[in-house]
Amino acid sequence: MTTQYDCPLNFTNNKLHIENKDIAEIIKNQPTPFYLYSENELIKNYCAFSEAAKALDAEYEICFALKSNPNKVLLRTLAALGAGADIVSGGELTRALNAGIAASKIVFSGVGKTEVEINQALDADIYSFNVESIEELELINELASKKNKIARIAFRLNPKVEAITHKYISTGYKTHKFGLLKKDILESLKNESLWKHAKLVGLSVHIGSQLTCLKATGEAFKVLSECVAHIPFELEFVDLGGGLGVNYSKTQEPKAPSIEEYMNVIKENVQIKYPLKIVFEPGRRIIASAGVFITSVIRTKQSEDCHFVIVDGGMNDFARPSLYQAYHEIFPSYRSENMVTTDIVGPICETADCFGEQRSLPKLSSKDFIAIADTGAYGYSMSSNYNLRSKPQEVLLTKNGEIKKIGELQDLNSI
Amino acid sequence: MTTQYDCPLNFTNNKLHIENKDIAEIIKNQPTPFYLYSENELIKNYCAFSEAAKALDAEYEICFALKSNPNKVLLRTLAALGAGADIVSGGELTRALNAGIAASKIVFSGVGKTEVEINQALDADIYSFNVESIEELELINELASKKNKIARIAFRLNPKVEAITHKYISTGYKTHKFGLLKKDILESLKNESLWKHAKLVGLSVHIGSQLTCLKATGEAFKVLSECVAHIPFELEFVDLGGGLGVNYSKTQEPKAPSIEEYMNVIKENVQIKYPLKIVFEPGRRIIASAGVFITSVIRTKQSEDCHFVIVDGGMNDFARPSLYQAYHEIFPSYRSENMVTTDIVGPICETADCFGEQRSLPKLSSKDFIAIADTGAYGYSMSSNYNLRSKPQEVLLTKNGEIKKIGELQDLNSI
Repeated sequence: MTTQYDCPLNFTNNKLHIENKDIAEIIKNQPTPFYLYSENELIKNYCAFSEAAKALDAEYEICFALKSNPNKVLLRTLAALGAGADIVSGGELTRALNAGIAASKIVFSGVGKTEVEINQALDADIYSFNVESIEELELINELASKKNKIARIAFRLNPKVEAITHKYISTGYKTHKFGLLKKDILESLKNESLWKHAKLVGLSVHIGSQLTCLKATGEAFKVLSECVAHIPFELEFVDLGGGLGVNYSKTQEPKAPSIEEYMNVIKENVQIKYPLKIVFEPGRRIIASAGVFITSVIRTKQSEDCHFVIVDGGMNDFARPSLYQAYHEIFPSYRSENMVTTDIVGPICETADCFGEQRSLPKLSSKDFIAIADTGAYGYSMSSNYNLRSKPQEVLLTKNGEIKKIGELQDLNSI
Repeated sequence: MTTQYDCPLNFTNNKLHIENKDIAEIIKNQPTPFYLYSENELIKNYCAFSEAAKALDAEYEICFALKSNPNKVLLRTLAALGAGADIVSGGELTRALNAGIAASKIVFSGVGKTEVEINQALDADIYSFNVESIEELELINELASKKNKIARIAFRLNPKVEAITHKYISTGYKTHKFGLLKKDILESLKNESLWKHAKLVGLSVHIGSQLTCLKATGEAFKVLSECVAHIPFELEFVDLGGGLGVNYSKTQEPKAPSIEEYMNVIKENVQIKYPLKIVFEPGRRIIASAGVFITSVIRTKQSEDCHFVIVDGGMNDFARPSLYQAYHEIFPSYRSENMVTTDIVGPICETADCFGEQRSLPKLSSKDFIAIADTGAYGYSMSSNYNLRSKPQEVLLTKNGEIKKIGELQDLNSI
């Protein structure tokens, strides 16, 4: 059973709604462009993941990947559901803690942890440093020594498998900067001086993002299990990373696997002789469908046989189409049977500033808007001020049906 | 004569300098990563452009493209040299005016000018709206009518030529969102109702960015001249856009044309029967080589035969390599004959976060840094807070040899 396309947008009386709210009403009080999140959808996705994980009959922790969306209000919702955090910077550590996520549920990934960031994480007593090189371990050991602490370490294993996804977000191949090879992990255990102020408590693996075929994932889990078997003592946990894909289109092939299928791949391939905790690092799967990007039509343009809908949101607001050539469903503000084929473009002076090519939409005018679906992940978090444009606002439809601004200051002083 | 690779970096006593300043000394007072600009290089580039333009024997205006770098301090330097501005947003208009650029030297490009932005530009009395569609002209005419003003219009001609550059920044082909076709321009002149509060004073053309072959550019200028000949009255100016490429590498082929070659292409192809002013919109050519991105080595990593230098700057700070697969020269902090072949990667959790593959560099350690050259254009202006990282600082080496922080607040309240 694979997942079908699903998002909180729908047409009621031919007008675009998010759940039961008319988006045209929301726009009256909120200048476009803006991100609009559904708290219900976020909760639904988190709970679906958590429910499915119970089938593993193991202790588990869901460490939400902040890089996908670090909005503090959304994080508070996840924290209340019991989520931990997968972080990749000092900024994300501060944010996770401020949102009420316990340090004991925070794992710190990334190849470039700086001295300042490592010290910050040691002071916070996080659950685990997901260490990506021996050189990094050396520094953590040294800094922990100065604080007279024992750092909790999970090596990130480079399983030497190639994930089928966009090359920018494939991360488990041997030429990638991520993780350590099995032989280097085992070799390091013989070097006692590395472990005076560090303790290996886990192993982690993460081979890429937006995975829709789980073959390489299964292989990576097998390699991970073999590596665990070679560790001469018992670990506390394995961290299986994130990467489970979503359906960005109604016709996406292959479709994203269901969470149940994903758990089955884990059951089949994570074979370890003693019970240990399983850590997950989902981001996109939890939050992508909970966000839509709302942008107004400025004008349309006809040039010979080319038709354009020009909107007030640009690639600075939402970068995925230009950066990853990503496809996203685009919903018009009203439904009609009278359609035109059009490119949907933004105001930025680059041809890359295009949200969709040759899409079928009703005839739109400057009174209308569109919603770009599944933009909850890697949407606002990648936005910039290119062309001296302000970043878009973020707005939440709460589970109580209220509309709330949850945007952040653009400087980071407040994190 | 084509341009040779040139940038303000050099080795003195085998240590990396910008002009005659030891960068290691600058880093002592400035945490990395940061952009470092040379005011001398900026002035040199602007003056070279301006000098070469004199050969045209025509009145001219150099409208610096703010999208390439809108730093206020750098704009003030350009304003003092007489530069105008090519803007694409209300934010850029405010910034240009605040930096002391006269409204009479500002042209407003872009397909998505909003009502608010058009009103702002009408109030400021800018030199010209570079109009990209009839639909836009209708709105400008209507808004100018309400203010009882006459808007100055230059249609942007879509010359239907395909520039040889990255597809994201090629903008003159008929399927692109930019500009109007010649027949639509001429047709519009017959419709008097469009022109009650608007006056056609110019024509513009811009077929793309980072152009190194001027064949398509010459063709576009020819099409522009033909279009001018069909306008039944005299215009005040033609705007030839920007797009002149630079040399991003020592071995780039084809090399960027010299400014003199570019002016020759103009002389040969811009053939108009009466004298008119020529407007230029250079950005990259003026400011790319004036900026370098300085980032410290966090650690190195060896994984089988793969070697990585991990630096503290990431794709959030400098997006061109990930967005356009752009090549930039990378200078190490010291010169040595003992070299390794390495990938230079950042701390962001994406394989795209890579500044150079298989480069030859001396053995670097966490005491060292690198400088990524030619990052003055589309560097800071495209930076983001992805992974909750602060944007990098901006630092200027002034023409008097002083080091000055010229970074901006990350919110846009101060523009």
